[in-house]
Amino acid sequence: MTWVEVSRRKKESLHSLIPPQWKLSATGDADAATCLDVSSLVLSELSLNERLITGSNVEQILRSISEGEMTSYEVISAFSHRAALAHQLTNCLSEINFESASKRARELDAYWRLHGRTYGPLHGLPISVMDRYSISGLESACGFVSWLGNPKNAEDEGTVVRRMQSLGAIVLCKTNVPMSMMLGETTNNIVGSTVNPFNRNYSAGGACGGEGALIALKGSPLGLATDMAGSTRIPSSFCGLYGMKLSEERLPTDGIESVLPGLPVGAGSVGMISADVKSLQHVLRLLLDSAPWNSCSDVLEIPWRQEKLDAIKKRAYIPEKLNGRLVFALMKDDGHSTPDLPTKQALATVEQSLRLCGHEVVDWKPPSHKTATETLFKIFGSTSGKCIREAIDASGEPPVDQLKEWYNQADTGSLPTEEFWKLCEEMQIYKRSYMEYWLSASAETVSGRSIDGVILPVSPNAATREGTDRYFGYTAVANALDLPSCTFPVTGRGSVLDGDSTEFSVDHAQGLPVGLQVMCWRLQEEKVLALVEAIGQSMDQTYNPGGTHTGEWFNHSQ
Amino acid sequence: MTWVEVSRRKKESLHSLIPPQWKLSATGDADAATCLDVSSLVLSELSLNERLITGSNVEQILRSISEGEMTSYEVISAFSHRAALAHQLTNCLSEINFESASKRARELDAYWRLHGRTYGPLHGLPISVMDRYSISGLESACGFVSWLGNPKNAEDEGTVVRRMQSLGAIVLCKTNVPMSMMLGETTNNIVGSTVNPFNRNYSAGGACGGEGALIALKGSPLGLATDMAGSTRIPSSFCGLYGMKLSEERLPTDGIESVLPGLPVGAGSVGMISADVKSLQHVLRLLLDSAPWNSCSDVLEIPWRQEKLDAIKKRAYIPEKLNGRLVFALMKDDGHSTPDLPTKQALATVEQSLRLCGHEVVDWKPPSHKTATETLFKIFGSTSGKCIREAIDASGEPPVDQLKEWYNQADTGSLPTEEFWKLCEEMQIYKRSYMEYWLSASAETVSGRSIDGVILPVSPNAATREGTDRYFGYTAVANALDLPSCTFPVTGRGSVLDGDSTEFSVDHAQGLPVGLQVMCWRLQEEKVLALVEAIGQSMDQTYNPGGTHTGEWFNHSQ
Repeated sequence: MTWVEVSRRKKESLHSLIPPQWKLSATGDADAATCLDVSSLVLSELSLNERLITGSNVEQILRSISEGEMTSYEVISAFSHRAALAHQLTNCLSEINFESASKRARELDAYWRLHGRTYGPLHGLPISVMDRYSISGLESACGFVSWLGNPKNAEDEGTVVRRMQSLGAIVLCKTNVPMSMMLGETTNNIVGSTVNPFNRNYSAGGACGGEGALIALKGSPLGLATDMAGSTRIPSSFCGLYGMKLSEERLPTDGIESVLPGLPVGAGSVGMISADVKSLQHVLRLLLDSAPWNSCSDVLEIPWRQEKLDAIKKRAYIPEKLNGRLVFALMKDDGHSTPDLPTKQALATVEQSLRLCGHEVVDWKPPSHKTATETLFKIFGSTSGKCIREAIDASGEPPVDQLKEWYNQADTGSLPTEEFWKLCEEMQIYKRSYMEYWLSASAETVSGRSIDGVILPVSPNAATREGTDRYFGYTAVANALDLPSCTFPVTGRGSVLDGDSTEFSVDHAQGLPVGLQVMCWRLQEEKVLALVEAIGQSMDQTYNPGGTHTGEWFNHSQ
Repeated sequence: MTWVEVSRRKKESLHSLIPPQWKLSATGDADAATCLDVSSLVLSELSLNERLITGSNVEQILRSISEGEMTSYEVISAFSHRAALAHQLTNCLSEINFESASKRARELDAYWRLHGRTYGPLHGLPISVMDRYSISGLESACGFVSWLGNPKNAEDEGTVVRRMQSLGAIVLCKTNVPMSMMLGETTNNIVGSTVNPFNRNYSAGGACGGEGALIALKGSPLGLATDMAGSTRIPSSFCGLYGMKLSEERLPTDGIESVLPGLPVGAGSVGMISADVKSLQHVLRLLLDSAPWNSCSDVLEIPWRQEKLDAIKKRAYIPEKLNGRLVFALMKDDGHSTPDLPTKQALATVEQSLRLCGHEVVDWKPPSHKTATETLFKIFGSTSGKCIREAIDASGEPPVDQLKEWYNQADTGSLPTEEFWKLCEEMQIYKRSYMEYWLSASAETVSGRSIDGVILPVSPNAATREGTDRYFGYTAVANALDLPSCTFPVTGRGSVLDGDSTEFSVDHAQGLPVGLQVMCWRLQEEKVLALVEAIGQSMDQTYNPGGTHTGEWFNHSQ
């Protein structure tokens, strides 16, 4: 069978797993062909109950199921339907698990009826996972035709997936990634390109573009991702979501496919994506409360530290104590690639909000992000991408456009290990110099407090069209330094800023959200998640002072 | 200047830093020439007060100083004298810092008089450090003549050394290491060979042989070491000491010289050596309480967890609840290198004591230690020891005997990075298989409890003569797995077993101690230290039931 045939069969098989009643209706199809922003189109295909269910965040879903307001089956069905629509409109799924998810939902419902309590604290929660995560019964093509036809079994599943399932979560689907998983957009010869649901001429970002599009369309309330240079954060930002890159080893990465097997440094970390920051907090807390270190040595025994989150919230919300309640560093430009206008405006918006709310904001001019990114990418390239080349060649498929230039170069082979160690040493030296800068900047704040977090762009551009050159200096720095960082949306469709500033129209004309990220010291995941909440609160207070506080400034319509 | 000249001058300079009154007396010298066991000889050179001071453990020293019973100056002087004697008898020092230590002690005494309180919780504690640790004003030759002549400055000092000093500790001296720092014994062309103080025909072990000999002779109450394949544990065991290898990143390793710069995996961890396990507990607790992660990113934010230590102590000492109070695995033989008779007897002694005290002991047959050790050593050798070769060649000195075979082979150059990553992957796979074995063995205990710790030999041989082939499978496995492990002495001079078992005479004829180690799950340093105490308690109860419980079964005479 040629790669074309294998790929076509996979695409058909995916389509066949969507029940006929969930196929886009004739009207929907016609709309879809002309419609760039498909977020409303999805809504028109759903029942009121399905809209209600899929518009809920993780905690709301869990509460409704545990209190008997919804069954797990209803929840899985509603999200399956919405995920199916999302896939038809954006090409976001790589594997569909609806049937097995429904079966599991019915089992959980039976458990609930029998025992009068939930199976676990994530009872019935639908989740999506990036294609890299092994799931029993599903394939992990990771964008390579040659990797199809090899469904995983239960032993292949990693600790995080096992823990999520034993807490009660149900894997609904796997999401699309680019060939090689090493691109900032999402395209391959199997599923094709995952597009941005708010403007389908634009990319959903990558490598977790499938997660980005799916979660933005609320086809899943939470996605498991990974991040080696921005894979969690770029699509999260492009799709108006909260995308958290953890520090390495805060959660284990076993059971995840790799194209750089054995890479001993910068091998990436777990990411989590949601439309809602509290959902990230909730799920990360439960995962850590499950003490994964008791069954896995690839994870640090650092429990969820609620006190770190509470400490930030307390400092953020004491109204009488202004000036320097929290201290942020803000990077407006990394000195190599100047952010575009929408991103600049997002930075200005956030800075203004924070200052108005009494937080301190200092400039951030650290050791070169570009240098660190180049070193990191040289580390990734030390074996000349051998595994990627082999995976492409094994089926005879052509490389996607973004990989062509690399692919067409002669294979330069591996660096000598001595050179590789030198790169590792450069990275160690960079880490130390960055930390020294952090400490010296902290010593010079007006409030005398240390810098709590660094706010910076995710990309020099808000969402762009596929095939645009991407600069990773704003995201890969957190990978080089092994720091946690979480994106947050600043402006988006229907943003309260629409009326305030005509300058945003450049971006809003495309209907695309604009996001930023906040990065903390190593292993301070709780702090990152608290800062994201505090930043949202500041924007709420500044731009929506009369509104009900949602704890979430930017919220897509249901 | 030839290397011979450089080396001779260094040796003379070291000798000149020993005050004339501390040079071995004529009598002492005469004795020393004929005496194999020099532990008593040292005593005969000391005043009663010096014997009292240097016979104290860390907590006793700190209490005496803080309560004004001793001055810091007295303490530093007494230990300096004893360290000077130790060096003259065993070649254990590489750098002498007596003068500067005395000056610091006087400053601390003045601080105490002025403020009526100590400068920090380690106020006035003398410590020794392995030659790898950078100390301002001292050299770090690390066994290479070419590395002499390059004294370090304050900026070179690493986080651990800085923290120790800011807690009040005073660096008395640096201790000898073998050329390359990668041997299980301690010899080089500068200081020469460090010999075992209990039988100078035998080796003190290595790479921290200098620490081993010095601390066994009580020239220092605590030493900072490192451990890449057993460097902390081998000399600790050979010299009857407690030598703790931490997990990687539990304490930072910045400011430490390396011959494998940039090595991104298995690069070793901090070790600590003392004649007393409580001293290790005390100092590690204080170091972690100082939150080194606030100024350094190379260390995990895992505070000292007293509750872990207390939990083991509680389970160990409840007399009414026997059978399986604690669960130990015991490795009698790794299937590759069978331990010698003294080591076998030590294993039997410990097993019997533990069983008699109601602890469960299960057999340990994990995935091959030899394989893991070979992979680890291939990782170390991936750049063909380039840096070591260069360091030797730079002065023209010959390699020490132990390195000759390697040195005389043609330089094979670096492995391709692809091969290096394969080794890293093998190590990851080994780690997972070992952990699976650990979990499966834990699931089959009689008591139903998980295995708390694994007791195993440190080396297939109790202390041996220099130049003996060493097998590292018993120690390097903890490095391959990144597990914490601490040695403890089982039999030694004056052991209560002397009368009990004639079989020990083989070893006792040499006057040498025999040690074992106990290894725990990753990052469980507190548990390791508690288990060492519990094992000592069991031996006390079994073999010395009427005696006063010292919490320390084996105690050298003062």
